Amino acid sequence: MNAAKDLKSRTVNSSSESSAEIFSKPRVVIIGGGFGGLTAARRLRRAPVDVFVIDRTNHHLFQPLLYQVAAAALSPGDIARPIREVLRHQGNATVLLGEVTGIHKQDRTVELRDGERIAYDYLVVATGARHHYFGHPDWERHAPGIKTLRDAIRIRERILGAFEKAERSAGRDGDEGALSFVVVGGGPTGMELAGAIAEIAHQTIVRDFRRIDPTRAKVYLLEADSRILPGGFDEELARKAQEQLERLGVQVMLNTRVTGVREDRVEHERGFILANTALWAAGNQASPLIEKLEVPLDRQGRAIVQEDLSLPEHPEVFVIGDAAHVNDRHGNPLPATATVAIQQGKYVGKILRKRIERSERPPFRFRDWGMMATIGKAKAIAVIGPLRLSGRLAWLVWCFVHILYLIGFRNRLMVMLEWMFWYYYRQPSARLLTGELELK
Amino acid sequence: MNAAKDLKSRTVNSSSESSAEIFSKPRVVIIGGGFGGLTAARRLRRAPVDVFVIDRTNHHLFQPLLYQVAAAALSPGDIARPIREVLRHQGNATVLLGEVTGIHKQDRTVELRDGERIAYDYLVVATGARHHYFGHPDWERHAPGIKTLRDAIRIRERILGAFEKAERSAGRDGDEGALSFVVVGGGPTGMELAGAIAEIAHQTIVRDFRRIDPTRAKVYLLEADSRILPGGFDEELARKAQEQLERLGVQVMLNTRVTGVREDRVEHERGFILANTALWAAGNQASPLIEKLEVPLDRQGRAIVQEDLSLPEHPEVFVIGDAAHVNDRHGNPLPATATVAIQQGKYVGKILRKRIERSERPPFRFRDWGMMATIGKAKAIAVIGPLRLSGRLAWLVWCFVHILYLIGFRNRLMVMLEWMFWYYYRQPSARLLTGELELK
Repeated sequence: MNAAKDLKSRTVNSSSESSAEIFSKPRVVIIGGGFGGLTAARRLRRAPVDVFVIDRTNHHLFQPLLYQVAAAALSPGDIARPIREVLRHQGNATVLLGEVTGIHKQDRTVELRDGERIAYDYLVVATGARHHYFGHPDWERHAPGIKTLRDAIRIRERILGAFEKAERSAGRDGDEGALSFVVVGGGPTGMELAGAIAEIAHQTIVRDFRRIDPTRAKVYLLEADSRILPGGFDEELARKAQEQLERLGVQVMLNTRVTGVREDRVEHERGFILANTALWAAGNQASPLIEKLEVPLDRQGRAIVQEDLSLPEHPEVFVIGDAAHVNDRHGNPLPATATVAIQQGKYVGKILRKRIERSERPPFRFRDWGMMATIGKAKAIAVIGPLRLSGRLAWLVWCFVHILYLIGFRNRLMVMLEWMFWYYYRQPSARLLTGELELK
Repeated sequence: MNAAKDLKSRTVNSSSESSAEIFSKPRVVIIGGGFGGLTAARRLRRAPVDVFVIDRTNHHLFQPLLYQVAAAALSPGDIARPIREVLRHQGNATVLLGEVTGIHKQDRTVELRDGERIAYDYLVVATGARHHYFGHPDWERHAPGIKTLRDAIRIRERILGAFEKAERSAGRDGDEGALSFVVVGGGPTGMELAGAIAEIAHQTIVRDFRRIDPTRAKVYLLEADSRILPGGFDEELARKAQEQLERLGVQVMLNTRVTGVREDRVEHERGFILANTALWAAGNQASPLIEKLEVPLDRQGRAIVQEDLSLPEHPEVFVIGDAAHVNDRHGNPLPATATVAIQQGKYVGKILRKRIERSERPPFRFRDWGMMATIGKAKAIAVIGPLRLSGRLAWLVWCFVHILYLIGFRNRLMVMLEWMFWYYYRQPSARLLTGELELK
């Protein structure tokens, strides 16, 4: 515990500190312990700075596999790791559990929910995104989205709970939607979630129930566009993905814009689907904190940043990851993926490590290595450089890349084991409901 | 889906069913999917009966390791398994997720929360126990107990949250209890929990914080009796256990009856301890459903059953496990352990399988194989027949027995791996907070 790490605002206290101490160790405050924030922090491990990482949760989350927790195939512990543990050996990094509610660019402080202020010399805003209901926040209640571990556990309880309720009420009339599942949004998350639910219903739990037949469950994937995986993904691969989904029993409905979500149905332009379980994977909205930056935002609430990812008048404030709007060489915005966030974290880390002045900073360039997505258990599609893969080979590549990416040896091994078990025995191991269901 | 499994009350519907169908397949309703209930159900797998298992949660829980989930060393998925999965291949067993709120012995029906009634020919009540606050239910808020996965996760969040809050508020005055933990109750659960917390603070997370020193955390174990492990455990081993706890840094306070629990302190007869985190492991109370049986209860609310574990006037109704009061040969009540519940489940299963009339039933006899408890990571005490073990050898025996007992291959292997990792690397892998902490 040294004075330089004291929480109190350095701006306020600076008169009582020696100026040498102030100027020799600038403080970098990073808001958010996701891919972007944590990569930036790690890049500063040998730099003569004090790093503060502030997050609302205590863990770094491997979001690309979050749908697997929702589908009860992985446990929360398999895809998350305490931020403290990741930064344990990085002596210049302090981790704070807290919610940032304000950013004061003039004072160079951030404000926490309890009113406490933390001073910074450099600020990296890596707060990610939440789901977005296109002006209908009331839909969230009936169609939760999936961004946090808590979301995933809640969705798991909805999915498994639907089968439990159906078994309870089997034989009674009038609950047509009991075993219908609607996933809204045909991007990678929606597609992966729909495939996973179809597999649970049609394979995993077939023998677990006595009075209902899980194979009669219906899974719908609704997409407003004329194709699934709109925006970036190869069109032929998207068609293959759709075929594979349909083979799993998912009913893909294209050109279908959702107009309402109620407890027992999802309404769209051409009618409605009776379904007690709806899940949302349709829209992203940057964290509300971004508004506090008072800079131009795009339609999704992301900060439109400079070529060096900093703010126009404030070269000491950076926004990265899903919270930032950055265009690629063709003028299209970069997608909200882990790869983009990681590359941006590295970029900002380098600028801060070398203390590069704005005029000297090279613009951020995203190197696109490809994209991939899974459909159900052993199928996937992948674009890697000039290669286009689908089916089992793509799935093996998908597994390999995801396992490699998982931070921390233990998680990596466990996920590998889970997958092997799942693949060979078709029996997911995490099918637990920890909450108490409200049974009607 | 056949008619005999229809949920509707058979008493009500019997006129429309053939009498052959009614009498050929008696229905056994088991309330509770714990050790007792599940053992009874499994014993009926080849019997010509229909078995209904009703539980409020969807999983069977390995309660003896629950404190490890609370101490963030194991994940919920490691010690729990869906009841449906356990009974998947037992064609005569139907699992219902639901809460039983009434038992009507005259009608031979049980009533669920939604008013639905389920008829039985035989009833096995295996509803377990909750913690008990000796007439002070308001203490629960500040000193939660540990019986369910949800309890364990909540306690985990309290423990880890205490360190997070302390790191946040380090340097501010006046929060002496921030890193003090009080465990109330010196039985096996309390002892194991206190040992685990001491180990987290003094070993596991030592390098994770920058502004607080976790080794300065204080862990108190309060016991009203003049020794820990009162009731049954060998006195010399209890003394050894206390020594081992103290070596881990736990302050054991004997003859200390708790008189109050507040947000920032635990009060006892001789004073109080400033502590923001208190945990309850002191008392058991049988589930409130037992009162509905309208039979004599003991002080802990357990049904005082006949020698064949059935009710005085109702040889078709059995109570087993933590919900039953049964004496051993010396007139002392049997402890609330998994071993007792399992033996009782086997006993009742046999009676039902062979349809033994009450007059022919041999009285239930408990075979005592021993007791064991762990202290921290690699220490334990154990009594096995004439053997008394302590230290590392007892710990190895403890590991072996617990791994063997865990139902289901996958869980068993995973727990073994977790333990090996933990033991070699001293780094628990499940330190996640899934809820959002309320930070003041």
